[in-house]
Amino acid sequence: MLSFELTATDGRARRGRLTTPHGVVETPAFMPVGTLGAVKGVPPDTLEALGAQVMLANLYHLTLRPGIDVIEGLGGIHAFTSWTAPILTDSGGYQVFSLASRRRIDDDGVSFRSHVDGAPLRFTPEGVVERQLRLGVDMAMVLDECPPWPVTEEQAAAAVDRTLAWAARSREAWGREDGGRRAGGLFGIVQGSAFRGLRERAAAATSALGFDGYAIGGVSVGEPDGLRRETVEWTAPVLPADRPRYLMGVGTPGDILHAVRQGVDLFDCVLPARNARHGNLFTRGGVVKLKNARYRDDPLPPDPTCGCPTCRRVSRALLAHLIRSGEITGLALATVHNLSFYLDFMAEIRQATASGTLAALSDPVISAPPNEARHP
Amino acid sequence: MLSFELTATDGRARRGRLTTPHGVVETPAFMPVGTLGAVKGVPPDTLEALGAQVMLANLYHLTLRPGIDVIEGLGGIHAFTSWTAPILTDSGGYQVFSLASRRRIDDDGVSFRSHVDGAPLRFTPEGVVERQLRLGVDMAMVLDECPPWPVTEEQAAAAVDRTLAWAARSREAWGREDGGRRAGGLFGIVQGSAFRGLRERAAAATSALGFDGYAIGGVSVGEPDGLRRETVEWTAPVLPADRPRYLMGVGTPGDILHAVRQGVDLFDCVLPARNARHGNLFTRGGVVKLKNARYRDDPLPPDPTCGCPTCRRVSRALLAHLIRSGEITGLALATVHNLSFYLDFMAEIRQATASGTLAALSDPVISAPPNEARHP
Repeated sequence: MLSFELTATDGRARRGRLTTPHGVVETPAFMPVGTLGAVKGVPPDTLEALGAQVMLANLYHLTLRPGIDVIEGLGGIHAFTSWTAPILTDSGGYQVFSLASRRRIDDDGVSFRSHVDGAPLRFTPEGVVERQLRLGVDMAMVLDECPPWPVTEEQAAAAVDRTLAWAARSREAWGREDGGRRAGGLFGIVQGSAFRGLRERAAAATSALGFDGYAIGGVSVGEPDGLRRETVEWTAPVLPADRPRYLMGVGTPGDILHAVRQGVDLFDCVLPARNARHGNLFTRGGVVKLKNARYRDDPLPPDPTCGCPTCRRVSRALLAHLIRSGEITGLALATVHNLSFYLDFMAEIRQATASGTLAALSDPVISAPPNEARHP
Repeated sequence: MLSFELTATDGRARRGRLTTPHGVVETPAFMPVGTLGAVKGVPPDTLEALGAQVMLANLYHLTLRPGIDVIEGLGGIHAFTSWTAPILTDSGGYQVFSLASRRRIDDDGVSFRSHVDGAPLRFTPEGVVERQLRLGVDMAMVLDECPPWPVTEEQAAAAVDRTLAWAARSREAWGREDGGRRAGGLFGIVQGSAFRGLRERAAAATSALGFDGYAIGGVSVGEPDGLRRETVEWTAPVLPADRPRYLMGVGTPGDILHAVRQGVDLFDCVLPARNARHGNLFTRGGVVKLKNARYRDDPLPPDPTCGCPTCRRVSRALLAHLIRSGEITGLALATVHNLSFYLDFMAEIRQATASGTLAALSDPVISAPPNEARHP
């Protein structure tokens, strides 16, 4: 069980405190993605120092490697990863549908082969709950069906129906197990693609099941930015007000600010890491694209207004050189900065929400100089 | 000019203090390899915290990318890399001979094409000295000809002759430039493959030119371990006693201990990083090969006797998982440990040399359990 307390609101935006078995999460919060148990290029000591409150991991990937038995035998996911603060695992539904081979879905669950070694595996709603309980995660996600983009309304409705049927079974499985273990909370996931009626029906039916938190899934799968934002506007406000709301896989700083204003509390996204890999740094002056020739001899830190370990030490010139040369130290230093940018922005959002000044906060990336692209 | 003071000796082994424009190096010392200006997977803050005293970079690679003009324009190699302690650059002779394409050597120098973009380049003894002065390195190396292994005595003799002729020109070029810039020291390089007569002749003739330090080159190029050690035994003791001696590209902890006992002061080697990449960790209990199935569920730190940031935080099980999965965080954490192992071992060597107990120090890796390979 998770306790969630709202300490302030500003319009629909919420400033909250989410208490989990491994500590408190001040919301709105961004959760760095450590799919396999570690954030790419960022050791756990560094991630802590940046102020990350929650790490995200992925049940599909951890099931394949190293296997749930191994992690459970070591004392659970916190002992395994050495991450002592809260951990949320995605159920892996999205990965099963996008990565696994020879996937065969039926009403009971989904059978597939590991993309690593071809081993046959099966995920059911109950099995996915059970695995996350064995890992000892603070926040678990139900198994859902996440349709691709674009999708017909009929297909999206079928995915909603299956996700709701699985959600009911997941909730029941969680309730059976909850008492006996040091469990955190289980999140239901609202599907429905970009169809307002489906989203509203899914939100109501998922809420009726009584989860510890609610996620908006099936976004960031290729849909246009405007439609993604509309989907958030339809869905977030109709989710239970007393429970945390999590927008999965979103997004740019501007997307996050928009969703906070619709009442979303939790976020994760691979953009900070993916942009770092491509040499694109989020800064208060816009996106710095390090592969641009102008940065070859630029002695400034990545973001002169930033206090992260990367900006305190190295220049754009060094980072541009290392990333151009494919040196992993460049990727690591750039990821540290981008994550720091996101985490600092969330702190600013929390502060503004608490003080009722969220309306005055603007997308920090939109203020890019005209010769820089806005959307990395 | 470098000042070098011997503070203690133990047999042929020397405990010294090498003073450079960017600080003192306590010798014997291991210099982590940051070919392109950064150690792979180890940010400069972390490298400092591990106790690294000198970073090695490579003139060939920096000439290709980002170019000497860029680094000079930024204020030199220290400003560029953000590494404030001493820096040694290898001249890149070895890389010209092993990496460059369409290489054509003549008595004046070597013409080649960049392995990155095919651009035509030329290295001469004078040009290589000039470039290192422009970088502002603390220790510069002469351009040498490093023959492959195996090589005939005639070919090795020709490489010695060319290296000596180039050494004389390098020394003269350095002398012309030295006064006007804040220069460190220039090292001569002794070639001669595994031929004792050639090594002795090269050592005497190089010494007669009066360098600030002397390197033993042309080792670790594929020759048997025993012959490499003999080469060190022939060469190190006949180099000037009042100048630092540097054994290039060597080696295992046992190789380093052997060479220290022959009077060598400086070392560099890619083994800590290369072994980390393969999941092989140096420990006081032998080499831990993380890809071995026994480490999949091993909750111990990589080396229970080690105090490095990696061993203070993560388990062999997590590292094995991350390295098996190709996660760069695994490589970074493993490299931090292996470098820390080397740097700690050098501190132990310095302590033992100062206290006259070097004979009692043993190869820390030889004490491996019988089921572990000794030579990673």
